[in-house]
Amino acid sequence: MTRIATVTILGTGVLGAQIAYQAAYSGFDVVAYDINETALAAARKRFVKLAATYEEQVKGAAGGKADAALKRITLQMDLGRAVAAADLVIEAVPENLELKREIYRKIGQLAPAKTIFATNTSTLLPSELMESTGRPERFLALHFANQIWIQNTAEVMGTPKTDPDVYRTIVAFASAIGMIPIELKKEHPKYVLNSLLTPFLDDAVELLANGVADSETVDKTWRIATRSSLGPFQILDMVGLRTVYNIDAAVNEKQQRLARYLKENYIDKGKLGAESGEGFYSYPSK
Amino acid sequence: MTRIATVTILGTGVLGAQIAYQAAYSGFDVVAYDINETALAAARKRFVKLAATYEEQVKGAAGGKADAALKRITLQMDLGRAVAAADLVIEAVPENLELKREIYRKIGQLAPAKTIFATNTSTLLPSELMESTGRPERFLALHFANQIWIQNTAEVMGTPKTDPDVYRTIVAFASAIGMIPIELKKEHPKYVLNSLLTPFLDDAVELLANGVADSETVDKTWRIATRSSLGPFQILDMVGLRTVYNIDAAVNEKQQRLARYLKENYIDKGKLGAESGEGFYSYPSK
Repeated sequence: MTRIATVTILGTGVLGAQIAYQAAYSGFDVVAYDINETALAAARKRFVKLAATYEEQVKGAAGGKADAALKRITLQMDLGRAVAAADLVIEAVPENLELKREIYRKIGQLAPAKTIFATNTSTLLPSELMESTGRPERFLALHFANQIWIQNTAEVMGTPKTDPDVYRTIVAFASAIGMIPIELKKEHPKYVLNSLLTPFLDDAVELLANGVADSETVDKTWRIATRSSLGPFQILDMVGLRTVYNIDAAVNEKQQRLARYLKENYIDKGKLGAESGEGFYSYPSK
Repeated sequence: MTRIATVTILGTGVLGAQIAYQAAYSGFDVVAYDINETALAAARKRFVKLAATYEEQVKGAAGGKADAALKRITLQMDLGRAVAAADLVIEAVPENLELKREIYRKIGQLAPAKTIFATNTSTLLPSELMESTGRPERFLALHFANQIWIQNTAEVMGTPKTDPDVYRTIVAFASAIGMIPIELKKEHPKYVLNSLLTPFLDDAVELLANGVADSETVDKTWRIATRSSLGPFQILDMVGLRTVYNIDAAVNEKQQRLARYLKENYIDKGKLGAESGEGFYSYPSK
């Protein structure tokens, strides 16, 4: 397996910042790339806030470890310099096929031959991007969930061209940064988790939107029947309504209708889920 | 609300027998109807076995209570006599629209005007049956799950013609026999539970059947992401593969393909789920 020591994250949005911070927290040297000073200033704030969150929520993070992670992150807005020493580049730029292809064409030229590329795309297939990398055998998807320090699954999904050694390297890397690797044996839209989760949540929202039953009744039914601690609306509150909205809004007509229902009845009223203090349920302690 | 004291169950198959026994166990006088001596002999065996199961698994059932329930059940193969004194008839005959309509036409004539009719149908809508009853305002669906003493939800679903007082009577009856009533505000195919559960399980089976990930990986992903104690294949083992097979086999092409997958790879090999000792997982204690 390839040895991974230096990791570059492209894109410092919500999830990009979390991936960068988690890798640094786990001892890796991290380069966080974004396109301009404004984006990097926002990234700097995100990292400081993440350090505070880890101190509060992650066992062992207080007493210096969360702060030390910050020192292992270098901010960079020159793409060539960002990838020059990378063993692994994790791409977390916006979900736009052409934008992603363009960035892969660039780093395919700029990065050393050894560098592995991993996309964090939620909605595209890695095979749609692989040819743009110029090195499809060293390319695959590594998909994280929001709140990486709590929702610590990382789905690893190759293309038919991914070198098995590269795949194993990335599975080991995911473990090394504290993730539980979810190994997909072949490409599948939406990976394992969202293949199950988004239609499940959609079905629950549909029961509510159609007036079949209220959210408490639906949750109770699910909890009892499957011996779960959370029903679908409790899971929705935990995942965050905006996350589900963004996924649904990008898909077909039925899901867009449900996305609108969530937006009009909850999101527009500030009910975003547990993090905001209210979603389908109230969370007074938040 | 109407007072319910005497309950007649039509059909003594797996679920009909469980409903009859549970009602008797809860103190109701129960008439269990089936079409001939053979069916009633099988019913008698089912009731005795249920009493033994309750003694083992239901708190308080040992020491006479489980046996006493048996004495409150009368077997009957004359339909007129079966319904003559019924406050409530729960129909649990095979899932065949014409068969059910025929039996409702008969009992609509045979039962007193006061009698409420409830169908335990899983796959039909009560509005497809209501006109055959001759008393649509005293008719609704009351849907139980297999292993009623453990999976104790009862979904209550009226038609546009169901009298609200009848609806409330049945909600109260469900509680009185130890069920947690799930109140549906309007008709919906597959109720609340199966609207969520069967597509969810289908999606999981599809990931497996398509070779995307193994069952352990899928379950692990779900458990971590939703903080559940059981993943979809563990739930499938608990519900029983034949139950899911029977639901899927009755639906569309995609689901029939998944049903065949379950049958060929599991059911035909005796892997029926937790009850049989093996399904997707092994249950050595069974």
